Amino acid sequence: METHQRLEQQIRFVLELDKLKQIMRQSYLLDTSRKENDAEHSWHLAMMVMVLAEYAATPEIDVLRVVKMTLVHDLVEIDAGDTFIYDEAGALDKQVREEAAADRIFHLLPVDQAAEIRALWEEFEANATQESRFANALDRVEPILLNYYTQGKAWLEHGVTGEMVLTRNQDVVTAGSPLLGEFITDLIHDAVKQGYLLKSEG
Amino acid sequence: METHQRLEQQIRFVLELDKLKQIMRQSYLLDTSRKENDAEHSWHLAMMVMVLAEYAATPEIDVLRVVKMTLVHDLVEIDAGDTFIYDEAGALDKQVREEAAADRIFHLLPVDQAAEIRALWEEFEANATQESRFANALDRVEPILLNYYTQGKAWLEHGVTGEMVLTRNQDVVTAGSPLLGEFITDLIHDAVKQGYLLKSEG
Repeated sequence: METHQRLEQQIRFVLELDKLKQIMRQSYLLDTSRKENDAEHSWHLAMMVMVLAEYAATPEIDVLRVVKMTLVHDLVEIDAGDTFIYDEAGALDKQVREEAAADRIFHLLPVDQAAEIRALWEEFEANATQESRFANALDRVEPILLNYYTQGKAWLEHGVTGEMVLTRNQDVVTAGSPLLGEFITDLIHDAVKQGYLLKSEG
Repeated sequence: METHQRLEQQIRFVLELDKLKQIMRQSYLLDTSRKENDAEHSWHLAMMVMVLAEYAATPEIDVLRVVKMTLVHDLVEIDAGDTFIYDEAGALDKQVREEAAADRIFHLLPVDQAAEIRALWEEFEANATQESRFANALDRVEPILLNYYTQGKAWLEHGVTGEMVLTRNQDVVTAGSPLLGEFITDLIHDAVKQGYLLKSEG
């Protein structure tokens, strides 16, 4: 009876997850046929953890925790929507919207699991542990790759400059992974050179 | 220099992964607006591992390995495409097509990582360890949930019967998770009753 109710809550949460497949981001897929959604993005990050974990700032990170963090880091966007990283107006009430979403969505689960997922999400947001720093680094690297290899399609649509991308991403990526920090710095400089990003006004 | 070449191979693989977002499955999203793709499906399974691991046939399974298996289990479909579980013609050359795909896709990576991902994929396909049995169970449960909660939309489009769904899934799910085996058996019986699945000819 107890099990039955617990499973029912878990299945309701699993069904709710389906909605993340409809939350659209600003980055285009590499073939530019459409924009990426949050579920695909989360899968892509989890795969990047598997493949790039050796470049984390601390080599002895807990890979399972990083993977779990990437899987759940955007769940609140089911209610709160995706806020483009260069949207300053959207950033203002982002935290309030996302807190309310966390309360509703995570609490579809039994309390022990709601607490686990909330803790993972809060760890990601606080960006203070080695695991969360690496997860946040990858969350910045992935859209930079998609943008660079689509000749800056989403960047140019939003009038983003090279300086904006460096300011918002270089420190975050470097903190999680010095080598990936160097890698994206080179990519961003080259993107400006190629015209994928606007030159900063000087 | 060594690192540079290694990272380059890894980034090429990460870019290749983007194609999984374009491989379409037969199941519809719950709002029936479109079909699901493999990247979303893989993310959904990895989340189900997090939430449902307590129902694995053996409680002491290695959760990280199950999660990794769900993340990579469909990568070969980038080349081989998705084969619908009730498509008997497609099943005939599925293995040949998928082996060729594994050779190409996994070997974009440095050899040590290619070997790791190939081993995970082969373990999933062989379905002989506790971890792979649980991963395979979830891979069957997810589309059954999507079908049931869309009133059997994809099932009815393909003329699928209740007996077909039971035959192809009941033993696989039960082997990975007895409780989820019971759960989907009830769901399938109810789907027949509701007209979401065709009655078997008797």
